Amino acid sequence: MRRDLILMSLPPTYTRVVFAERPVGDIVPHKTFRIEPEHKLADLEPGEKQVLVAVDYLSLDPAMLLWLNENPYREPVRIGDTMDAEGLGTIVKTGKDSKWKVGQTVKGGFGWTEYAQMDDGAVALHEVPQGGQLLDFLGPLGNIGMTAYFGLFEIGKPKPGETLVVSGAAGAVGSLVCQLGVLKGLKVYAIAGSDEKVQWLEKELGVTKAFNYKNKDVYDQLKEHMGTFDVFFDNVGGEMLEFMLTRMNLHARIVICGGMSDYNNPTPSGIKGHLNLISARALMQGFLFFDYASKFGPAVAEMQQWLSEGKLKRKYYIVDGVKSAPEALPMLFSGGNTGKLIVRVSNIREGVETKE
Amino acid sequence: MRRDLILMSLPPTYTRVVFAERPVGDIVPHKTFRIEPEHKLADLEPGEKQVLVAVDYLSLDPAMLLWLNENPYREPVRIGDTMDAEGLGTIVKTGKDSKWKVGQTVKGGFGWTEYAQMDDGAVALHEVPQGGQLLDFLGPLGNIGMTAYFGLFEIGKPKPGETLVVSGAAGAVGSLVCQLGVLKGLKVYAIAGSDEKVQWLEKELGVTKAFNYKNKDVYDQLKEHMGTFDVFFDNVGGEMLEFMLTRMNLHARIVICGGMSDYNNPTPSGIKGHLNLISARALMQGFLFFDYASKFGPAVAEMQQWLSEGKLKRKYYIVDGVKSAPEALPMLFSGGNTGKLIVRVSNIREGVETKE
Repeated sequence: MRRDLILMSLPPTYTRVVFAERPVGDIVPHKTFRIEPEHKLADLEPGEKQVLVAVDYLSLDPAMLLWLNENPYREPVRIGDTMDAEGLGTIVKTGKDSKWKVGQTVKGGFGWTEYAQMDDGAVALHEVPQGGQLLDFLGPLGNIGMTAYFGLFEIGKPKPGETLVVSGAAGAVGSLVCQLGVLKGLKVYAIAGSDEKVQWLEKELGVTKAFNYKNKDVYDQLKEHMGTFDVFFDNVGGEMLEFMLTRMNLHARIVICGGMSDYNNPTPSGIKGHLNLISARALMQGFLFFDYASKFGPAVAEMQQWLSEGKLKRKYYIVDGVKSAPEALPMLFSGGNTGKLIVRVSNIREGVETKE
Repeated sequence: MRRDLILMSLPPTYTRVVFAERPVGDIVPHKTFRIEPEHKLADLEPGEKQVLVAVDYLSLDPAMLLWLNENPYREPVRIGDTMDAEGLGTIVKTGKDSKWKVGQTVKGGFGWTEYAQMDDGAVALHEVPQGGQLLDFLGPLGNIGMTAYFGLFEIGKPKPGETLVVSGAAGAVGSLVCQLGVLKGLKVYAIAGSDEKVQWLEKELGVTKAFNYKNKDVYDQLKEHMGTFDVFFDNVGGEMLEFMLTRMNLHARIVICGGMSDYNNPTPSGIKGHLNLISARALMQGFLFFDYASKFGPAVAEMQQWLSEGKLKRKYYIVDGVKSAPEALPMLFSGGNTGKLIVRVSNIREGVETKE
């Protein structure tokens, strides 16, 4: 960490991206959001027990769509406010009595901005674990990892030898779920949207078999190779969910993590087979990772252990500049990115390597 | 019990109803089933540890629809076999070494027949509890009661003071669920299909408020009076389920007991709001009562206690003659019956009173 460079490089102004208009249906990047350059950095002077953070990386996640409108689980982002986002940053200034030091890397809810003034207690220190990299705190060790971990283990409750099927399997969460399944001794069937992804899932992640849902005979293939399942970790919804409702073992569990096919669809196709839940005595359950905050410690420790043993693979798809965030976000729903979508904001922290 | 009459009155032949043709969509009474009169009763001579039962009453239940076609939870009824059904009957003959006595009332899976030859172990003795009546063994103390009890308590897991909403609330299961909810200190909102049913639910069963779903403003009424819910016991599916998916409290539980609106609908409407399960961290779960067989004892005891205290009301809707069963069964899906649907088969047992 080149502390002298950090301190020298603070610019007079910074850019942030604000939430401009509630979307009806799809996000329209430069209508839903507005780029605001040339805010004075001097206005972000950290007060008592506060810090100024230069944002290095921001995480873009499907859940962000839920933050833009009325929803039951949190206040929506207010019009005119900086768009919320979790990120990694470097402390570049400390206020009176701050417990932090300039140069430390921290994680926090900085939002879509180049600089953020934060309370001491609103940021947390992170050290890169052996076998890991900084970005892993926005991947396996962050929200994505906790989503995969608690969705699979707390909702899916898989037992060794059971059959797990994962849709959106090459995505940030899905690819972790596949690997957790393999690590826990499950038969893992992965569904993704290209032959390249299928190859990656089978050869790199070691799933039992992967399927390209764009193949016309995908349902026949699934019947032949997968048969029926115990746990379905669903990131996609739509037709595949409908099909899976006909392929449940007794007491099957469908983990509703997302519905990418429906996010993208002005008229969600819906599901007609929910009565099959009766004869299979099965459940469909939604969840949000942050309900399990009290259990993050052991979960992160287990993920770090796997990372240090080289047992978890992950990809990062990085776009540059906070200004890119509005156009990058919709990629999560169109399949445009492969791997965890990240915005690289600052140039202060140089060249973090990415791994495939 | 007039034992002499029973023994004198055995006829030379009996009638049964067999499963003739697997239905595609709706049941067509005299195509799906075939009435077979004039079977020789002498062919049903009970062997060692067997009995001959004169069937008094048969229960008609929505689950029967699931028995007619391939399904994951039990073998379908075979073409040409007597249609399966649970019933109450009187032992009229005993085979060698049978533990039963002529004149005893027993419950068993007799099927749609006037007489059944049964193994000793396939029938169970029932004594009418104080405050109850024989038919209660096909109601609160039978499959219907166990469905209400375990669906509500094991899947719904209501806590005192929570809000319960019940669709098909004037039906056999629904009306019991409403009362169990009231007994357990829940706020109970009931949905039924006529103003008369609404009156009965409010005035007789004591629910907090009942709604006629045929009223155009039913959704506005539900919003105003119920607001949001913790447990939805769903017998109906369709539009009401769709609506309820938008009215969930955090950690809401939707108990999928049936889907009468869809049983009757050649193109099920389906549900489009399943992603709301995520933000509410809610679940939809199907169940079948017989998975809880190991817990029937205490459940029946609790139901008997409530019956003896006059705390459980129930209605029986009785059709006469086993020949009526094929035409009666579809009433379960059209709302034609009010109360538990029962076929009175035999005249041996006279005039069991029914209560409203």
